Amino acid sequence: MRRFNTLFVVALCSLFLAACGNLGSSSGTSGTTTSKGTQLTGQAASGDYQSVIKNGRYVTSKSRGVNVSQNDNQYNLKSFESGLLTVSKKVYSPSKYIFEEGQYLSTNTVQNWLARKSKSNPTGLNPVNNGKTGANTRNPIYLQQMEEQDYMKQNGKKLTLSGVTIGLGLNSIDYYQKQNYGATYETHISNATIQREGRQIANQVLARLRKKAALRNVPITIALYKQASDDSLVGGNFFSYSVNRGSSTSVGSWKAISEKNYVYPTTSSSSSTGNSNDESSFENFKTQIQNYFPNLSGVTAQAHYVDHQLSGMNVSITTQFYSETEIISFTQYLQQAAQKYLPSGAPIDITVKSAEGVQSFLSRDQGEKKFTSHVFDSY
Amino acid sequence: MRRFNTLFVVALCSLFLAACGNLGSSSGTSGTTTSKGTQLTGQAASGDYQSVIKNGRYVTSKSRGVNVSQNDNQYNLKSFESGLLTVSKKVYSPSKYIFEEGQYLSTNTVQNWLARKSKSNPTGLNPVNNGKTGANTRNPIYLQQMEEQDYMKQNGKKLTLSGVTIGLGLNSIDYYQKQNYGATYETHISNATIQREGRQIANQVLARLRKKAALRNVPITIALYKQASDDSLVGGNFFSYSVNRGSSTSVGSWKAISEKNYVYPTTSSSSSTGNSNDESSFENFKTQIQNYFPNLSGVTAQAHYVDHQLSGMNVSITTQFYSETEIISFTQYLQQAAQKYLPSGAPIDITVKSAEGVQSFLSRDQGEKKFTSHVFDSY
Repeated sequence: MRRFNTLFVVALCSLFLAACGNLGSSSGTSGTTTSKGTQLTGQAASGDYQSVIKNGRYVTSKSRGVNVSQNDNQYNLKSFESGLLTVSKKVYSPSKYIFEEGQYLSTNTVQNWLARKSKSNPTGLNPVNNGKTGANTRNPIYLQQMEEQDYMKQNGKKLTLSGVTIGLGLNSIDYYQKQNYGATYETHISNATIQREGRQIANQVLARLRKKAALRNVPITIALYKQASDDSLVGGNFFSYSVNRGSSTSVGSWKAISEKNYVYPTTSSSSSTGNSNDESSFENFKTQIQNYFPNLSGVTAQAHYVDHQLSGMNVSITTQFYSETEIISFTQYLQQAAQKYLPSGAPIDITVKSAEGVQSFLSRDQGEKKFTSHVFDSY
Repeated sequence: MRRFNTLFVVALCSLFLAACGNLGSSSGTSGTTTSKGTQLTGQAASGDYQSVIKNGRYVTSKSRGVNVSQNDNQYNLKSFESGLLTVSKKVYSPSKYIFEEGQYLSTNTVQNWLARKSKSNPTGLNPVNNGKTGANTRNPIYLQQMEEQDYMKQNGKKLTLSGVTIGLGLNSIDYYQKQNYGATYETHISNATIQREGRQIANQVLARLRKKAALRNVPITIALYKQASDDSLVGGNFFSYSVNRGSSTSVGSWKAISEKNYVYPTTSSSSSTGNSNDESSFENFKTQIQNYFPNLSGVTAQAHYVDHQLSGMNVSITTQFYSETEIISFTQYLQQAAQKYLPSGAPIDITVKSAEGVQSFLSRDQGEKKFTSHVFDSY
């Protein structure tokens, strides 16, 4: 399945790359004075990076689309990419640096690196196939996805590459087939092994990147991400990162990242919870709105913890609505109920969906008390 | 098809009604002093109605779900219901009145009224079946959907029914089959006929409502809506309304409503446009963002005109994204481009979708200059 997806995406990508042939130079250091040259997108919110526009076009990643095909669970994709931005913000301040999609690792390179090492693929970062099929005797695929992000500094009208972040997504469970189209088996990988293999792969990646002239003297941050299982309703999490100053060819030291994601309500099978107070707050909210509205079919939340503190929540409410006025009234009610019952302090998004798509949404930013709301209307 | 839908929804509704048996009295005049009694949802935005909560539950319409089954084009459903709220706001100010879903017309009543008049259905508001099947010789179905909205005034802790609005949705095209499961034919209905039939039906509805004790002395507003065709990408529009003071049993006078909806870009088949300046603004915006982002698959807008002035626009952008960073950058860019290219003055919503659903959205309220944006993230 993954292989077919990959081929499909490669085909798509070559189309796009062909279509984008007039993007001009993709070198990291570039800058012109004409309005047709390099521009920035502007910031949507303080704390976001501006990004680079070249000749009126967005500069897409050189390995665009590879990660889409590498993730059977789409939560791992979004979580990995936003998480990598969060790590980058610790190192490259959005007020000083400008974001550009990765320009140094091509689709081909990334695909080779993500594959197993073999005679035909000497650059593979995953272990050779040892021919065994037992869950604990085979060599699992450790590295599932990787992403490069480039960070530029503006100097007058010139943008200079001033930092690179590499994210490495490591499997906690490697899914595999013993035969093509056969049953799916799982190799579970311990946290200790994930860390050991991740660090070892990071060392190799750093050494390889230093061989590229443009990256020889640029700070390179490498962050390690533990992929969630394929049936998870929330993505995995970054657990470690390392900032490597220009010219260093092996990773010196690692810093721990304490981030965890949970799904509320917790099911009996996944009894782990981030914080029982937050969970009961959510349960109260859920009970309250289910009493209010006759047939809510799903009320769940993703809760994100940093250093054991709730740092964000995405609530998803699914139901069938029978009129626009029901959606409006329900959204008004949610505004009250969310403020009253959901944990205060952390930013919270609430999305209200029906079979026809998103109907309304509410949001509260960090430090605010009230929720703002929007009902998606139609003329 | 419609019949099966109807049956299905009736079945669903009876389930809900059963489940809501403990809603207590649904009489329009009620009010208690306990916190378990009648409450209000609060306003999400000034200019919105508060709505009624009874015993912690939302008071759903007595004919809930009928309109869902009456519309093969869902744009007619949303547009009809929000449009009816807009008409009501002209008559019953949201600062003085509180909204309640219709409590006087039951599912059964509405279904009978929406059907053809016949021996077994003497209350049908659509003409008898004359047995003919020619597009212009048969009697078409004029009345496609209807909705009741109740408006209450608060007096101390008591809510009193103080106004009712009835919307009548009238077909511009009646779709019919000559045989069950056969080909679909169309009877086109002229604007003059829509108005004549609509007024005549309104008269009957008013007279019938006056026979209900609770509605005898309440102002009743009736509004006429022209349904869009089933293949339209935008809903129909209200074109006329009448405010009838308490106890009047026939409609006195009608006021015109000048509202029109258009889809941009206009297709060659639907060459009508609201305003060519607005359309070229939208075309510029579209060209600009399609240059910026490599593979936007759809950029369309619903434009809403009141008295020939643009009074709102919903822009919908569909594409495949290959990373969260692409969505963030694209949204930032849209914020600039929308402010620069889209018509100023009118409120505008922009929704960015992929196959996985809504990815981000931007919005500018009436009188504002900048767009606010939100990217739907996932942990």
